[in-house]
Amino acid sequence: MSEMNNYRLNSKEVAQATEEWLIKRGVNKGQIGQLVMLLQKEYFPELTLDECIANVEAVLSKREVQNAILTGIQLDILAEEGKLLPPLQNMIWNDEGLYGCDEVLALSIVNVYGSIGFTNFGYVDKLKPGILKKLNDRSDKEIHTFLDDIVGAIAAAASSRIAHRKQAEREAAADFGSSD
Amino acid sequence: MSEMNNYRLNSKEVAQATEEWLIKRGVNKGQIGQLVMLLQKEYFPELTLDECIANVEAVLSKREVQNAILTGIQLDILAEEGKLLPPLQNMIWNDEGLYGCDEVLALSIVNVYGSIGFTNFGYVDKLKPGILKKLNDRSDKEIHTFLDDIVGAIAAAASSRIAHRKQAEREAAADFGSSD
Amino acid sequence: MSEMNNYRLNSKEVAQATEEWLIKRGVNKGQIGQLVMLLQKEYFPELTLDECIANVEAVLSKREVQNAILTGIQLDILAEEGKLLPPLQNMIWNDEGLYGCDEVLALSIVNVYGSIGFTNFGYVDKLKPGILKKLNDRSDKEIHTFLDDIVGAIAAAASSRIAHRKQAEREAAADFGSSD
Amino acid sequence: MSEMNNYRLNSKEVAQATEEWLIKRGVNKGQIGQLVMLLQKEYFPELTLDECIANVEAVLSKREVQNAILTGIQLDILAEEGKLLPPLQNMIWNDEGLYGCDEVLALSIVNVYGSIGFTNFGYVDKLKPGILKKLNDRSDKEIHTFLDDIVGAIAAAASSRIAHRKQAEREAAADFGSSD
Repeated sequence: MSEMNNYRLNSKEVAQATEEWLIKRGVNKGQIGQLVMLLQKEYFPELTLDECIANVEAVLSKREVQNAILTGIQLDILAEEGKLLPPLQNMIWNDEGLYGCDEVLALSIVNVYGSIGFTNFGYVDKLKPGILKKLNDRSDKEIHTFLDDIVGAIAAAASSRIAHRKQAEREAAADFGSSD
Repeated sequence: MSEMNNYRLNSKEVAQATEEWLIKRGVNKGQIGQLVMLLQKEYFPELTLDECIANVEAVLSKREVQNAILTGIQLDILAEEGKLLPPLQNMIWNDEGLYGCDEVLALSIVNVYGSIGFTNFGYVDKLKPGILKKLNDRSDKEIHTFLDDIVGAIAAAASSRIAHRKQAEREAAADFGSSD
Repeated sequence: MSEMNNYRLNSKEVAQATEEWLIKRGVNKGQIGQLVMLLQKEYFPELTLDECIANVEAVLSKREVQNAILTGIQLDILAEEGKLLPPLQNMIWNDEGLYGCDEVLALSIVNVYGSIGFTNFGYVDKLKPGILKKLNDRSDKEIHTFLDDIVGAIAAAASSRIAHRKQAEREAAADFGSSD
Repeated sequence: MSEMNNYRLNSKEVAQATEEWLIKRGVNKGQIGQLVMLLQKEYFPELTLDECIANVEAVLSKREVQNAILTGIQLDILAEEGKLLPPLQNMIWNDEGLYGCDEVLALSIVNVYGSIGFTNFGYVDKLKPGILKKLNDRSDKEIHTFLDDIVGAIAAAASSRIAHRKQAEREAAADFGSSD
């Protein structure tokens, strides 16, 4: 453990591990981008999937988000392997309705782009469109109790980011068009 | 202002004002109970509207909830009367998408019954069923930027309370039925 | 894993596991009660340690709190055993300053008794009095990255509970003393 | 009110109003910067007040933060003028201990820079150093029930931002110094 005494946080390593683990657990940016599209297309008809994915990437670049993703995936994996303490093992394995630590971690992701994302998070978490449906399918023996909520939270945060950006673009265009 | 120096919080007054202001702003417990029913009936088919209303009443008895309700209604009323500081007046009057203090106050209500309510809050806040649709109708010149989210949050909190109670009932029944 | 298909949440089991794991990790209710005393004695000079402990017990009886405790202790234990995914292992082992999932889980405990507990949570989390100092002492090779924040949160929540109760007592006494 | 029908959010107006109202209510960026200095100097001895102020400015540029500031100051002003609904008027005027909407709004500011700021928020909110002491002084008849918590939250958020930035600087320097 000598190297631990010389601990230095390596941000690239955290970012890279987050990216790799999302893929290993069956989630890619395109799928999250599609959730964003679903949430935002009615407000911004000209929105493209590429734009949605770029906003997902911006969300994924935040440390707060990476920490929540790694922690959640870690608990999912341990539940899958049956390695958690007894009552916790049962609750996470079964995605127990009265267990809310998954929602708590997810909300810390939403919060980074402000409170306007709460609604979108709850909406996709209830309806489970696209990739969220797949994550909730238990036929493949995989446990995604945390990842499920986390992916919805990333989509909600990216949606908030888009709402803020689009407003800024609109105002910049208005400034440019005005005579003064 | 001499009476303010002798200030003593009167809890009954706070509770009563909350109840009265909800009614004055067009919201009764039955309407919130119907939102709860909508959210919970698929999980508890035997749930009655009276039970939903009783759970709404339990949520409304919490100080944290009363404070958020009074504060939100206050801001709605002032926006209606055009008495807020300029940019705030515009944002609340127009239920500006990038203004999230209404969601922030609402979430403090949900939190009192734990994180499992986030999803239900987001869901009703997006779909606007029942009374929420009426609160969002601008044709009557009333402003409900805060109350809208607050009512959804009360319904979400009452739903969480029901989920916890039903589990306790189930376990009590199992204990009673077991031979040891 | 056949018994998992017949999963039924057992609340007593969750409550009991929480109690046992707190003890195994070196924390007893008296120590948390002392933190509460430290936070509240200036406001309620007549407060006893027994009262503080009774309020800690009430906080510990909440499912939301139990879930956060079990999840946090689980992550601490796994970090101690070196069993977490690489960057997460390093961050939790070293109580990395930019890792905030411990604060996130802790805040979900505080929230159950309302927002008035945020201040007390931050205060003890910064000053580390009593048991919190011991949990932060790394000389014994134990990792308490999560438990440290969780214990502070339980003390903050118990303090909020006391503040609400004392107000109710004061008002009940005033009612009794009044002539009408 | 015809211009309200043509409502368009003007971000510059919101940012400018926030800046002006902070000044009118007796708070300048230097004072908030000093709180940041107090919170961070032990971790970063080379930190300057100018750096602290630059980080406060970055926090103040966020919409989520501006919304919370304007809403909080609005409620303080109305309490000062005695214009709130009865029980709310009393609670905000007296900075009632069981009223937590001020902490709720403040926490939404802290959240924008992640959960690592909770501790710092609670700490300054309890100790009331510098400008916070002045805001809590009731001798001048001003009410700062909300602004008090908001200023502490801005300082906590700026502290989180500094912690993230300093880490990035450290890693960039390490990259530059390495031979590969």
